[in-house]
Amino acid sequence: MDSWVPGAAGSLWDVDNLPYGIFSRPGGRRQVGVRVSDHVLDLTGLASRQHLDLADALDAPVLNPLMACSRDQHSGLRSWLRRALVDPAWQTEVAPYLLPLEELELHLPFDVADYVDFYASEHHATNVGRLFRPDQPPLLPNWKHLPVAYHGRAGTIVPSGTGIRRPSGQRRGEGAPDFGPSTRLDIEAELGFVVGAPSRAGAPVPMRDFHAHAFGVVGVNDWSARDIQAWEYVPLGPFLGKSFATSISHWVTPLAALEAAWVPMPRQDPRPLPYLEPDSALALDIAIEVELNGHVVSRPPYRSMYWSPAQMLAHLTVNGASVRTGDLFASGTVSGAAPGEEGSFLELSRGWTEPFGPESRLSLEDGDTVVLRYTAPGVEGGRIALGEVAGTVLPALERPV
Amino acid sequence: MDSWVPGAAGSLWDVDNLPYGIFSRPGGRRQVGVRVSDHVLDLTGLASRQHLDLADALDAPVLNPLMACSRDQHSGLRSWLRRALVDPAWQTEVAPYLLPLEELELHLPFDVADYVDFYASEHHATNVGRLFRPDQPPLLPNWKHLPVAYHGRAGTIVPSGTGIRRPSGQRRGEGAPDFGPSTRLDIEAELGFVVGAPSRAGAPVPMRDFHAHAFGVVGVNDWSARDIQAWEYVPLGPFLGKSFATSISHWVTPLAALEAAWVPMPRQDPRPLPYLEPDSALALDIAIEVELNGHVVSRPPYRSMYWSPAQMLAHLTVNGASVRTGDLFASGTVSGAAPGEEGSFLELSRGWTEPFGPESRLSLEDGDTVVLRYTAPGVEGGRIALGEVAGTVLPALERPV
Repeated sequence: MDSWVPGAAGSLWDVDNLPYGIFSRPGGRRQVGVRVSDHVLDLTGLASRQHLDLADALDAPVLNPLMACSRDQHSGLRSWLRRALVDPAWQTEVAPYLLPLEELELHLPFDVADYVDFYASEHHATNVGRLFRPDQPPLLPNWKHLPVAYHGRAGTIVPSGTGIRRPSGQRRGEGAPDFGPSTRLDIEAELGFVVGAPSRAGAPVPMRDFHAHAFGVVGVNDWSARDIQAWEYVPLGPFLGKSFATSISHWVTPLAALEAAWVPMPRQDPRPLPYLEPDSALALDIAIEVELNGHVVSRPPYRSMYWSPAQMLAHLTVNGASVRTGDLFASGTVSGAAPGEEGSFLELSRGWTEPFGPESRLSLEDGDTVVLRYTAPGVEGGRIALGEVAGTVLPALERPV
Repeated sequence: MDSWVPGAAGSLWDVDNLPYGIFSRPGGRRQVGVRVSDHVLDLTGLASRQHLDLADALDAPVLNPLMACSRDQHSGLRSWLRRALVDPAWQTEVAPYLLPLEELELHLPFDVADYVDFYASEHHATNVGRLFRPDQPPLLPNWKHLPVAYHGRAGTIVPSGTGIRRPSGQRRGEGAPDFGPSTRLDIEAELGFVVGAPSRAGAPVPMRDFHAHAFGVVGVNDWSARDIQAWEYVPLGPFLGKSFATSISHWVTPLAALEAAWVPMPRQDPRPLPYLEPDSALALDIAIEVELNGHVVSRPPYRSMYWSPAQMLAHLTVNGASVRTGDLFASGTVSGAAPGEEGSFLELSRGWTEPFGPESRLSLEDGDTVVLRYTAPGVEGGRIALGEVAGTVLPALERPV
């Protein structure tokens, strides 16, 4: 039975999707919403009217209280939402809470606790290794044994649409380093996983418990200043080359909407250690499009990732580190095996040597707008959209300090 | 005029110290307190009784609201506290809020936003470089041009006294990696700086604005599993080798208590770039003692650090990254030039080759207790103590996954 919401049936935002986000009316407070078609359902308002169990968790300016609820509560809410948006008997009650998306402002969907960024694409790691260490094997010795990762800056994660100021910083110079605006500003097209239920300190999360802690996914663009990164990153990893901004989508797609997207993994050889349970690892079939100033310049396939989301979480916690509600762990740049599937400009331009796209870009120029779009198979046979991630490059400050 | 608080006058916790922390009575809620002598002044209770301006910020289970207040508010509160604890006319009013420390539980003093760890000791970086890369110059080319740093895990920062579970993880093996409890568990004796007032996104914090954002200092022990770290850390830096736990002191010492501790820096050569303003950089004269099972095994001098606290904050934000209330940035391991001044067991044992101390340790064994103690010159001529950082190593879980 189709939804009574105009434009929903068969669209990318049908009732088999229903991602959560935070919106406000002009001048209003931040509230929890669910997207359906080109509308946002005001869940905060509707839940209080319907005396839903979760009304307290839904009366919040961020999704964290909702994400911290139990899986039973999440699936109860999702079932109720589908019923209310499909059964015409609910239309009179629910329709007043359905707001046109274009009249609303969307916000950062959750308070980000810790942000971890993985490096889980073999093709990306290989491409980068070839460019940076041409005389050595492209993958470092640890790469196929563990999903390499580092902590990023949670406090500079911004919602889609936020302008991205070109950072200034130190770059390797002739003899001494110089200082100025980055001349190698890049994107990283990624997928991010958001933690709902926290884990206990000292208790690793085995792969079979992935769904007990991972609530949903967001689109991620981990903007990167490659010249700053290249000079600073030894021996402790990327810092200022990444920490100026990371963009995420407005919408958090619950894993329940991605049940039809799980597919077999690429083979892992050598076989990982037992805690990374290679036999039960699954990939997600999510298609990504990288759009630069309106032109699609790349189509990275998430299903080509070497390490699975559950392996990432198992690795992240195997030393006893706990996760908290609002933790974000991202995949790292998604790059496929084929040309045209690269998730960064560094790779698309073959190390800044071959201009790509209709505008012959090497790296990002001021005013460039990048939009990452994501789709996946829906549970009812069609496709669903994940939240897009958009950002426009603003010129560097003239006098940064 | 001496304080009327018993034991305060001339002690390490006199009224020229007055660090802030979070305490609870047995079964009670978390409240803001100030330490003086062996007592904690219940500031939450007293402020509500005295109708202090800051009563709202002081009625909180963490220091974040207090730390976010203005410098004028902070100095007003500090002046009022000193008067109330010195002038006998206040004794009748204030004494009921003075609680014996031994009857209280102390907690994590603030919600940690982002945690950044620097690598600011030349002696530490040199010692580590010699051990890890014996055939190369000990310092990497960027080290004297910028304060190297990385993001750590904020969610696993624990207060002094929390037991530290030995982590398990992957270590480099013969051919393939193996998995098990870390056999090279270590400490890192550090000093941490806590951000009070946030900065604006896109606006670097110049060194002259350090005091407008840095509220105070804490002791930090950045526990490190060197075998896990050595295998995982290329190319993105330390991750699971550090993320299992970082201990901080219960007490946050406001920078106002350290006004007499600023001293000239070691000379910086080559001269850093202008945004690191070498002419105005100052070091902090804080003495650290590393105590292992009751024996002092090392005395790292914080004044020997190569990069200054204000340089760290200027660097952290020069790319436009903002800081938030509750951000913690730590110095990295503090090691002096002389033997007996090392801030890690890796260095004390000369790379696990020379047992040190009365118990002939190389690395930490289960049951070992490490206490870091810190003192500094007080503004009234004596010395003040900073909060200590204690932790005892618990055995690894038998079946971690």
